[in-house]
Amino acid sequence: METNGPNMIPLCSDFTEQKESICIFGTGDFGRSLGFKLLQSGFSVIFGSRNPGLYSWVPRGVQVLSHAEAAEKCPLIILAVQRDHYRFLNELAEELDGKILVDVSNNLKINQFPESNAEYLAQIVPRATVVKAFNTVSAWALQSGTLDASRQVSVCSDDNKAKQKVMDIVRAIGLTPQDKGSLMAAKVVENDPLQLFPMWRIPMYVCAGLTLLVFLYCVIQDVVYSSVVTGKDVSFRIMISIPNKVFPIVSLMLLALVYLSGVCAAILQLYRGTKYSRFPNWLDRWMLCRKQLGLVALSYAFLHAIYTLVIPIRYYVRHRISTSTIAQINKNETNPFQNILAWRTDSYIALGILGFFFYVLLGITSLPSVSNAVNWREFRFVQSKLGYLTLLLCTGHAFLYGWSRFLNVASFRWYMPPAYTLSLIIPCVVLILKFILVFPCIDKRITKIRQGWERSSKTKTQSNTKV
Amino acid sequence: METNGPNMIPLCSDFTEQKESICIFGTGDFGRSLGFKLLQSGFSVIFGSRNPGLYSWVPRGVQVLSHAEAAEKCPLIILAVQRDHYRFLNELAEELDGKILVDVSNNLKINQFPESNAEYLAQIVPRATVVKAFNTVSAWALQSGTLDASRQVSVCSDDNKAKQKVMDIVRAIGLTPQDKGSLMAAKVVENDPLQLFPMWRIPMYVCAGLTLLVFLYCVIQDVVYSSVVTGKDVSFRIMISIPNKVFPIVSLMLLALVYLSGVCAAILQLYRGTKYSRFPNWLDRWMLCRKQLGLVALSYAFLHAIYTLVIPIRYYVRHRISTSTIAQINKNETNPFQNILAWRTDSYIALGILGFFFYVLLGITSLPSVSNAVNWREFRFVQSKLGYLTLLLCTGHAFLYGWSRFLNVASFRWYMPPAYTLSLIIPCVVLILKFILVFPCIDKRITKIRQGWERSSKTKTQSNTKV
Amino acid sequence: METNGPNMIPLCSDFTEQKESICIFGTGDFGRSLGFKLLQSGFSVIFGSRNPGLYSWVPRGVQVLSHAEAAEKCPLIILAVQRDHYRFLNELAEELDGKILVDVSNNLKINQFPESNAEYLAQIVPRATVVKAFNTVSAWALQSGTLDASRQVSVCSDDNKAKQKVMDIVRAIGLTPQDKGSLMAAKVVENDPLQLFPMWRIPMYVCAGLTLLVFLYCVIQDVVYSSVVTGKDVSFRIMISIPNKVFPIVSLMLLALVYLSGVCAAILQLYRGTKYSRFPNWLDRWMLCRKQLGLVALSYAFLHAIYTLVIPIRYYVRHRISTSTIAQINKNETNPFQNILAWRTDSYIALGILGFFFYVLLGITSLPSVSNAVNWREFRFVQSKLGYLTLLLCTGHAFLYGWSRFLNVASFRWYMPPAYTLSLIIPCVVLILKFILVFPCIDKRITKIRQGWERSSKTKTQSNTKV
Repeated sequence: METNGPNMIPLCSDFTEQKESICIFGTGDFGRSLGFKLLQSGFSVIFGSRNPGLYSWVPRGVQVLSHAEAAEKCPLIILAVQRDHYRFLNELAEELDGKILVDVSNNLKINQFPESNAEYLAQIVPRATVVKAFNTVSAWALQSGTLDASRQVSVCSDDNKAKQKVMDIVRAIGLTPQDKGSLMAAKVVENDPLQLFPMWRIPMYVCAGLTLLVFLYCVIQDVVYSSVVTGKDVSFRIMISIPNKVFPIVSLMLLALVYLSGVCAAILQLYRGTKYSRFPNWLDRWMLCRKQLGLVALSYAFLHAIYTLVIPIRYYVRHRISTSTIAQINKNETNPFQNILAWRTDSYIALGILGFFFYVLLGITSLPSVSNAVNWREFRFVQSKLGYLTLLLCTGHAFLYGWSRFLNVASFRWYMPPAYTLSLIIPCVVLILKFILVFPCIDKRITKIRQGWERSSKTKTQSNTKV
Repeated sequence: METNGPNMIPLCSDFTEQKESICIFGTGDFGRSLGFKLLQSGFSVIFGSRNPGLYSWVPRGVQVLSHAEAAEKCPLIILAVQRDHYRFLNELAEELDGKILVDVSNNLKINQFPESNAEYLAQIVPRATVVKAFNTVSAWALQSGTLDASRQVSVCSDDNKAKQKVMDIVRAIGLTPQDKGSLMAAKVVENDPLQLFPMWRIPMYVCAGLTLLVFLYCVIQDVVYSSVVTGKDVSFRIMISIPNKVFPIVSLMLLALVYLSGVCAAILQLYRGTKYSRFPNWLDRWMLCRKQLGLVALSYAFLHAIYTLVIPIRYYVRHRISTSTIAQINKNETNPFQNILAWRTDSYIALGILGFFFYVLLGITSLPSVSNAVNWREFRFVQSKLGYLTLLLCTGHAFLYGWSRFLNVASFRWYMPPAYTLSLIIPCVVLILKFILVFPCIDKRITKIRQGWERSSKTKTQSNTKV
Repeated sequence: METNGPNMIPLCSDFTEQKESICIFGTGDFGRSLGFKLLQSGFSVIFGSRNPGLYSWVPRGVQVLSHAEAAEKCPLIILAVQRDHYRFLNELAEELDGKILVDVSNNLKINQFPESNAEYLAQIVPRATVVKAFNTVSAWALQSGTLDASRQVSVCSDDNKAKQKVMDIVRAIGLTPQDKGSLMAAKVVENDPLQLFPMWRIPMYVCAGLTLLVFLYCVIQDVVYSSVVTGKDVSFRIMISIPNKVFPIVSLMLLALVYLSGVCAAILQLYRGTKYSRFPNWLDRWMLCRKQLGLVALSYAFLHAIYTLVIPIRYYVRHRISTSTIAQINKNETNPFQNILAWRTDSYIALGILGFFFYVLLGITSLPSVSNAVNWREFRFVQSKLGYLTLLLCTGHAFLYGWSRFLNVASFRWYMPPAYTLSLIIPCVVLILKFILVFPCIDKRITKIRQGWERSSKTKTQSNTKV
């Protein structure tokens, strides 16, 4: 087995004072990679195989023995074998008695089997102690040493001593163990590496749905209306003009949705008079994906910013401006400067920029390394105070952009209100509700409830205030 | 007590092999949340209460006993009670003898009491060992499992064994303990979660003050002068034109202030001939908030960048350009292309972009996770070399922007020099001083001083070089 | 010795229950700083010095003794002395017998001596146990407490117990120990703090070389050609127009190079029929610096974005537009609106924006704290799927930008093809090869190989599939 990166140089000068012997059943890719990594970290490694004589690739410090021999020599055995082959352990019941068996296996699909591989293993070898670990690292990562993705290794077992031992080995090879509790957690641990951004799924669906709806609405209002009523082909607007309506509208909706969940929760707690009843499931899920919703909203705001900034570069815009200048010349008049228009356009641009600035600030503070460096008061300050400020600025931006257009009948094409008004519904609801909730009398009650006070049950209230 | 999130599912299959029993006094919000979290992590939890019979919400694996009974059963008692109620522990002196008492309390204001809650507790129960911990996590975070903010739990105690035990419990429930030393540190630990960006306060004040001053200066020079002298109302400039002068001016000032502190420190060390005398307090504080100053400067530079990029979208600008084109037509002449003007404007824009680029690079390297991944040499290289390059580029940008305007009497309205000249004062001072300091003879001396050399005291010098 | 920051307040109330005594040889800058930090963390510190009577700066809790006396009192001695002075330890052989000697020294150049300082020390004092540690932290960082750069302390030793002890001390003073293996690693550890972005070197050279070449190409084609053929001086284009060609071209080349390495590796693995043979050295190095290559490409894309957005602000552009409008007037005609041109320009701008958006997303996910929070499947999804999407979008952007220009003889100045065509060569090669590689039959084979399957050797294949 050849090495594949710069940190594959064995770092131990002699193998006399080794940490301990570790046995690995299975000489597949993952088994070899892990074995080599253990070897580098000063362990001596014994591979257990059906055909121990066949191996030519074994590096110095490694033995390949039969399963039984290998198991006898080590107190800890790493099982780098697929679930289908676990049955062969039946024959080794005696050798495995009292040993620690580390299950590293992964499945191909989430919840592929009724019980987790580790629990299945524990059933097959009841007299060994099973620990689930290492399934979250990839063979490639172990080989190349470029552990760019997570260094965290989830470990779980019903036996605390065995778990500690495995966690020490994880630390010794430069990874970070995470205690996930008993073997019941193995199912979650085995599903973990198969997940593909589970927390992002709902926000993505919501965002995709809204994007599609708003896009169709705008296409009908702009392109279809124009082609049907005036006969003009403005289909090129699909590339920039319409996306630059869709992105800000959906972004503002999503940002408002982030804060709507908190407002809903507060109203529910007020109504129930306690915080100890569980939220309905939909609200729970909604609240847990607020961060992701906010980041999707931010990415749309980012796209809106760039789409807006390229406006003057576009051929269409340049042509329109030059046409309008030529028209003024031909009519031999100059459009007078409108002070109010200057105020309005500058204001909505300025509000938009400031809103975007705070948006970006919110995004930066949600980076794991930044949010880890602030305390709870600071985190709440940023996410709540700055969040509402952002929402306010962006809503103001949309209002000033639209100005009196929603009163203008001409902008209601086919009785459809101008698209920007769609984006204002949820933010206005949120801002009005929040405005009501921060009234002193209501705010005081919510604060009390959030500190554990309960309206209905006398006993609990007592216990909180009087110990 | 109902659960509130997906990770509230108890992860332990059986309670026979539990880690140990932990007693919690106080069944308030925090007590319950912590108790439930401990339960999830495999501990058995015993609540101590005045009215143990009243509780119906207790989940499986939890007992509610009287204070005395609960205290007797566990070696470690978590006190989730407010400071005002500590007196009731007087009666339990016997049961608490030799026990570990964990104080989790927080105050409402910084330095609310003369002694910290934990020290006060230690006075009341002198025969128990008091450990301060858990005050930095919120009940909500424990309940919801969404520990987005800090996972770090500050732990302090005069007894190392007790501290270790508490730190193990902290680790067991998935948080990161931080050893803060003896119980004397409890005051700092208790003030911690009440802080609101303490390091950002001075930079924010400096920035707000400068912003206000420069804003007023620009308003007087632009809007007031224009309305008084020419009678023209250009008040709409307050929204974009003037902020876009204020942001770059203040940003450049702040960036220069970041490096001015270092230059001052170097001069002081040169003058004193040692680095072992303490800097005056103002310089110390200044140096400690350099990172924050720099980030505020970066955020202003970011705003300047966007405010500049929206220029061609503004109604005012479009109107002015079209008016100037029409004027050329009417005069029947075309403004000739000025090669030097093209060079100058393109140069100052290019310098500005490059300056902004390095600004952003500096900002990215100050992210905790990035700065943790570089060694000292690299960090100094980025923050010092790239920092001065940024300062140089931005100063050059301002110089080229102004060009010969500061020589032009017309730009001195009411004898006030054009605003951009204000921004150049500090950067020029810094760059000139730095230029002097990098002269080989001076640089060598500073390097020696920073390696521990001292001019005056012979003995110390000797000790450094001769062991 | 005076303190220099806010966290220099000793946090221990009494020194009766101290952790243990630590001896430091050498009272230079680093020795003092480390000593003070240890003192703060509750250790008692004994300095060993040649002239113990001379020291007046010693704070409370510190003793200064002769080397021999100090060594006798402590089981662990930190050697804060330069390598040149190690010889004096010869005399202390007896006192150092069985002690742990911590080497903290650094060299001035990489690989300055044939053996590492720590190994040299181990030769001089063979009966002591040598541990290498603390060389990655700076005295200034210890003094000021502002550990902005890495908190990680590399520790290595041939003796595991001694290493563990030193790692405990590292943790106690608030730093993070990293086990680097045996003393053989000391050379690497000592070279570490002298490195200056070693992984960035190759990407930087490649980028600088390409930038220079493309810049010259563009200067010849634009400025020189124009001045020779038409006699017009357009040298001002060097500031913005030409960089804004160079940045996107080089950025696209670099992005394609990132993925070309992966494609090469896949082809090589297909050809060899195994993944267990080592890649040639050049490919290995190339693959290891992909992240850095990608980030350099991103920074060029960022510059391209800003350079593009400032276009309408430029004097040159404004003059050209106004001249063209005036020309239309004078000819008394209006350029008709070209629908196809509108489609084409809007499309290439939109593709560019989307490409840039995914580029930025790739950059954000390569931040250490973000990439640590995703599992392997997610990391691969982002870096591979999103990466190819970005490459596709950017290549499309370049194609649409150029459109039919490469067919136009007029754009071949001096037989040189237009510059943008240069940027398309590598991306097209990569996309075509990748397109071939994702054909089911080929993709299946590669997947098998990457899971450990080997074509030639029967035995290994067997061992993988049958345990």
